[in-house]
Amino acid sequence: VGIGDDAAVLNGRSGFQWVVSCDTMVRDVHFKPETMTYGAIGFKAMASNISDMAAMGAVPRFALIALSVPRGEREESLQELYDGLYECAGRYGVSIVGGDTTSCPADMTITVTVLGEVETGKALLRSGARPGDTVFVTGPLGLAGAGLRLLLQRGGSAYDTGGLTEQQQLLVKAHQRPLPQVEAGRILVTSGLGRALNDISDGLASEAWELAEASRCRIELVEELLPPCRELLAACPDLTPADALRLMLYGGEDYQLVGTVEAGRTGELAQLFAEAGLGFYPAGQVAACSGSPGVTLELRDGNVLSLGKRGYNHFGEDY
Amino acid sequence: VGIGDDAAVLNGRSGFQWVVSCDTMVRDVHFKPETMTYGAIGFKAMASNISDMAAMGAVPRFALIALSVPRGEREESLQELYDGLYECAGRYGVSIVGGDTTSCPADMTITVTVLGEVETGKALLRSGARPGDTVFVTGPLGLAGAGLRLLLQRGGSAYDTGGLTEQQQLLVKAHQRPLPQVEAGRILVTSGLGRALNDISDGLASEAWELAEASRCRIELVEELLPPCRELLAACPDLTPADALRLMLYGGEDYQLVGTVEAGRTGELAQLFAEAGLGFYPAGQVAACSGSPGVTLELRDGNVLSLGKRGYNHFGEDY
Repeated sequence: VGIGDDAAVLNGRSGFQWVVSCDTMVRDVHFKPETMTYGAIGFKAMASNISDMAAMGAVPRFALIALSVPRGEREESLQELYDGLYECAGRYGVSIVGGDTTSCPADMTITVTVLGEVETGKALLRSGARPGDTVFVTGPLGLAGAGLRLLLQRGGSAYDTGGLTEQQQLLVKAHQRPLPQVEAGRILVTSGLGRALNDISDGLASEAWELAEASRCRIELVEELLPPCRELLAACPDLTPADALRLMLYGGEDYQLVGTVEAGRTGELAQLFAEAGLGFYPAGQVAACSGSPGVTLELRDGNVLSLGKRGYNHFGEDY
Repeated sequence: VGIGDDAAVLNGRSGFQWVVSCDTMVRDVHFKPETMTYGAIGFKAMASNISDMAAMGAVPRFALIALSVPRGEREESLQELYDGLYECAGRYGVSIVGGDTTSCPADMTITVTVLGEVETGKALLRSGARPGDTVFVTGPLGLAGAGLRLLLQRGGSAYDTGGLTEQQQLLVKAHQRPLPQVEAGRILVTSGLGRALNDISDGLASEAWELAEASRCRIELVEELLPPCRELLAACPDLTPADALRLMLYGGEDYQLVGTVEAGRTGELAQLFAEAGLGFYPAGQVAACSGSPGVTLELRDGNVLSLGKRGYNHFGEDY
C-alpha cells in the first residue's frame, strides 16, 4: 500500500533490518535559487537522504516527502521539483510511498525520509574504525563546493548556465545533482570488509572527525593520497592549490563515502571496487588515541596539520 | 542503533509489516501561538502522526523528527517543544530514533515520521467498507474544534488559561493534547472485526468521504446516533445545537477513529470496546452506491442532508 491511505505498508525481508533517516532542506539555508533549479532542489533533497543509506551500507527502498511550499509558488516550479525528486528516486530504485504537502508563509522546506534495508547486524557504523585500519574515500572531493562557488561568482539564475566549459558543467552537476555511493556501500557490506563508514555531506574533515569521535581514535590523512583534484584546477584556473585543498577538506555535499578497512585487506577491497568500476582511494590510516580523538593531515612538504571540524586549527582560521 | 549515526537501524518482527507515514505542521498554518503552547505544539505534532498508525490498526514504535526553527527562538521554547514531543511519544511507547534540526528564516516547521508495526496483511485500509456494514466512531467529536474556537475568542496567550471552567479546560486539552486511539485500532485488528478505518483529523464528514471514495460506497450517518455533544454545550453556552453539529461534522483534530464493521458483528465489537473501557458509537451504515460515492446525514427531524467534504451541500455553504 502506497500513497492514498493514512500510511504506507512495507514488506520487509527475512534476514534484513530496516534503516531509516530523514533530512531537511530549507531555502536560503541549504540552497539558494541562484545556484539551484527546482529540479536540482528535488534531486538533491532525495540524494542527500539516499546518501545516508549508502553510509550505512543499506539498499534504499522507500521514501516519504514532506514539502512546505510558500503560497504564490508557480505550479510548474513544483512540478519540476517533484520531477527532480522522482528522477533521483528512480535512479536508485526508491519508491515514493507517502508524504505531506502543505502551504506555508515563507520558507520552502523539504524533508525526505528514506527507508532502506541491510542484512541483519551488518549496518556499517561510524564507530567501527580500529587502530591500524586503512582510511579510504570513494571519489573526488570538493567538486560540489567548487560548483557552488562557480555559480555564486557568476551571479544570475541557476537556469542560465550558458558559456560554462564542459569541465565547469561537471562541477555544477556535482553541486546540483550529486550521486550517492550506494553501490560502494553495498560492496563494503557484502564483502564484509567495511569496518566504519560515513558519507561526506559536510566535508572530509568534518566526516573524518565523526568517525574519530565515534570510534575513539585518530584519523591520519595524507595529502599525497587524497583523490586527485585535476577537475577542480582544470575548471577553475583562479584556484590556488591551497584553495583546492580547502575545498577538498571542507567543501561539502559531494556525497562520496569515507570509511575504514583492515589494513591487510585493503588490496582485496580495492580490487572489488575496481571490478565494479568504482573509485577507491586509500587516503590515510587509523591510529590509537591516548587522549582525545582527532584528525590530522600530512602535507606534501611533510608538515602535519591538525584539522578542525570546520577549519585548519593550525592556521586558526574558520573556513 | 538510534540517534548519532547516519541512520537508525530497526529490528522488525517476523509476521509483521512496517507501516510508515509523515505529517508536517507549520506555524501560522497548522497552529498559532495564540492557542498552542510550545509543549502543545510538540505533543500534537507527535499525536497527529501516531493517529495515522491508529488509523491503520498498527502499533506505533519509532519516530523521526525534522524541526526547522527560525533564528531567534528561545532555547527554553525549543526545550518545551521537545518535551511535548517526548511526552506524547513516551505515552504511546514510541522511541525517537532520529531526525534533523535546522535553522530557517521564518516558518517554524515540524515534520514527524512515525513507523509502526502491524500483523502482515492486517492493516486496516480506507477501502475495506462493504454495503451493509455498520459505521462507528470511537468517541466524542468537535471537542478540539471547540477548544480552538474558545481560545481564539478569548484572545491573548495560550499560556494564560486562567478563568476557564473545568469543562472548558477539557476542550482546550482536546485541542492542545489530543490522544490518538491506538488501542481501539489494535482491537479492530486483533479481533479481525475491523473492515475499513480512518482517523478523524479533518472532521467526520471529510473522513467519511475518504472511506466512501476509497470503498466506492455511500456512508449514511444518523444524527441521533452520533456521540453525545454534552461537553460542547456545557462548556460553551453560546453554541446553538446547529453550531455543535457543525463542530462535530467539520471540526477536525479530535483524532478519534471512524470505521466499519460487518453489521451482524457490531454487538461483539461493542462488547470488546466496552471491556477495554473505550468509546464505541455505531453512527450509521454503509450503502451501495450505483453512481458516485457520498456521505449523508439523517437529521433528528427525518430530513437527510448530503454532506460535502467541507460543508453542507444542502445549504450551499462552506464551513
